[in-house]
Amino acid sequence: MQAEADSVTISLDEVRELALGALTVSGADHDNAEAVADVVVQAERDGCASHGLFRIPGYCASLKSGRINGNAVPRVDTARPGIVRIDGDNGFAPLAVKRGRPFLIEKARRSGIAALTICQSAHFAALWPDTEPIADAGLVAVSFVNSRSTVAPAGGKKPVFGTNPMSFAIPRGDGKPPMVFDQASSVMARGEIMIAAREGKAIPEGVGLDRQGRPTTDPAAVLDGVQLAFGGYKGASIAMMVEILAAGLSGGEFSFEAADNYTADNGPSKAGHLIIALDPQLFHDQFSDRVELLFRTMLAENGTRLPGDRRLQYRQRTPIECVSIPRPLYEEIMAIVSRG
Amino acid sequence: MQAEADSVTISLDEVRELALGALTVSGADHDNAEAVADVVVQAERDGCASHGLFRIPGYCASLKSGRINGNAVPRVDTARPGIVRIDGDNGFAPLAVKRGRPFLIEKARRSGIAALTICQSAHFAALWPDTEPIADAGLVAVSFVNSRSTVAPAGGKKPVFGTNPMSFAIPRGDGKPPMVFDQASSVMARGEIMIAAREGKAIPEGVGLDRQGRPTTDPAAVLDGVQLAFGGYKGASIAMMVEILAAGLSGGEFSFEAADNYTADNGPSKAGHLIIALDPQLFHDQFSDRVELLFRTMLAENGTRLPGDRRLQYRQRTPIECVSIPRPLYEEIMAIVSRG
Repeated sequence: MQAEADSVTISLDEVRELALGALTVSGADHDNAEAVADVVVQAERDGCASHGLFRIPGYCASLKSGRINGNAVPRVDTARPGIVRIDGDNGFAPLAVKRGRPFLIEKARRSGIAALTICQSAHFAALWPDTEPIADAGLVAVSFVNSRSTVAPAGGKKPVFGTNPMSFAIPRGDGKPPMVFDQASSVMARGEIMIAAREGKAIPEGVGLDRQGRPTTDPAAVLDGVQLAFGGYKGASIAMMVEILAAGLSGGEFSFEAADNYTADNGPSKAGHLIIALDPQLFHDQFSDRVELLFRTMLAENGTRLPGDRRLQYRQRTPIECVSIPRPLYEEIMAIVSRG
Repeated sequence: MQAEADSVTISLDEVRELALGALTVSGADHDNAEAVADVVVQAERDGCASHGLFRIPGYCASLKSGRINGNAVPRVDTARPGIVRIDGDNGFAPLAVKRGRPFLIEKARRSGIAALTICQSAHFAALWPDTEPIADAGLVAVSFVNSRSTVAPAGGKKPVFGTNPMSFAIPRGDGKPPMVFDQASSVMARGEIMIAAREGKAIPEGVGLDRQGRPTTDPAAVLDGVQLAFGGYKGASIAMMVEILAAGLSGGEFSFEAADNYTADNGPSKAGHLIIALDPQLFHDQFSDRVELLFRTMLAENGTRLPGDRRLQYRQRTPIECVSIPRPLYEEIMAIVSRG
């Protein structure tokens, strides 16, 4: 548990500067560092500490070890009418997404639906920064990424799947921000378990098993053992689907392969990524009005809320209240920046 | 609980004959009756009693009441490069799927990805008969259908979503049948709860709440109350996504609208339907080999199995062992056939 005195309050501009500085001295060029820093800033802005500055030391270590290419130039293949295929040149995924997204949006507007795949890149498993801009452009987006194997298949006690998140984003009318959800196929996101371990907090039962396959509430034992999929075999089916859609279609590494090729630098794993974009206007011209009717119906009962709502509330507060960063993390990143 | 003497053993040909006979005397023309009977036969063949002959009395009642059009002529619009839009002419969905699928497959092979939507039709919420033929044609299929509101949103105790299943089907090499899963967004499929109620069996805790929002294991109380999504808020997010993809994009009814327009004839609800097809060869030429590697890795540990495996095992046994139908159901359908 951390006392108030053990944290540092900084603005989003300072978050960006810290991230950019640390990534740059660790070997990333401007375009790569900026694309990663954008995601880190969005995570801190939206109250998702598990994908914010918390990840920077790992990203920097994987740049320094050469596992990730900080000067990656993603190669974008748009030859097929409905597909954008990207080879990430062994870099971080955000630059690959940024380079491919305009083509995806163009193809979806032309055909009604299009897909983007990425292989040879390291994804952070925060998907809403990938899908929300597509919804900002008026399209529906569904995205899947696999990662490093930490989750058991149905009936198993050994890791095969990653936490394999999926994200779903839709545009809304009247200047409202898109509705976006982003959820792991595991009961708990790995970043949250890492934070619990760091802070010495217990995790709920059912999140995972220890190395011997026994239930445990010790986050360190689960990190060393195996995570469980949400909702039993149904969540495990979804984790498997994500594995096939994200890695099978892109040619990226399956999560168990990414784990074999992983070095313990806490950086992101190489895996695969799929984004599907659909132009709702080409499907049904009343789409937005219809979706608002659904949302009103959902929210008519007390206690309900839309997925992603908590993130939007954070987003409104952050520019005023700034961001609170654990002091040890702040000092760790400052040391990277100054040490180079 | 039913004793052996209370069931009738019949062949799949007899299942088809019963279904065709009952639907035809209830007002369905040949094409419509045949498309529905095909799904019923597949369900009985694969051990899915909840979508087999069990549903025939409801289908016949909804034909007789005129709620469903037994002479539907689905209208197929293929104008957009990546979309097949179908108006089901107020009939049962299987004929609409059958008419639209060849166009979906052709578009997916040309572009890499394509979508098919259906509105104005009544779907049975068994999705694998829709997706498996697409995988038989060498494509990956993902499908979503909403239904009649029976499931609460996250934090709610009143029905807004349907049981909203999704299905995922992929082709496999070496003459193996496709891997297909088909799972409700609710903890339990409604058909299973209906069968438990019919047989007087309790259902597990967590499946649903009674009309007052209290947990119960009485299937009748849950049918009268509300079902819960699998895996808590994550399953509820998926149920919401299905609602938007299936009904929002197609122009079909949302589940709460379908409920308002529903008469208690136990027939299927009108809602919306989305199928996405992807040609894996246009994404990555090693797709099949890669997927087999994933499956071998999953199955390396004792106790694991592939989703849909139980259905394939049933499928092999059924032609030899025939199908066991509860005698009261058999007699009910025979009465429909002879009474007209």
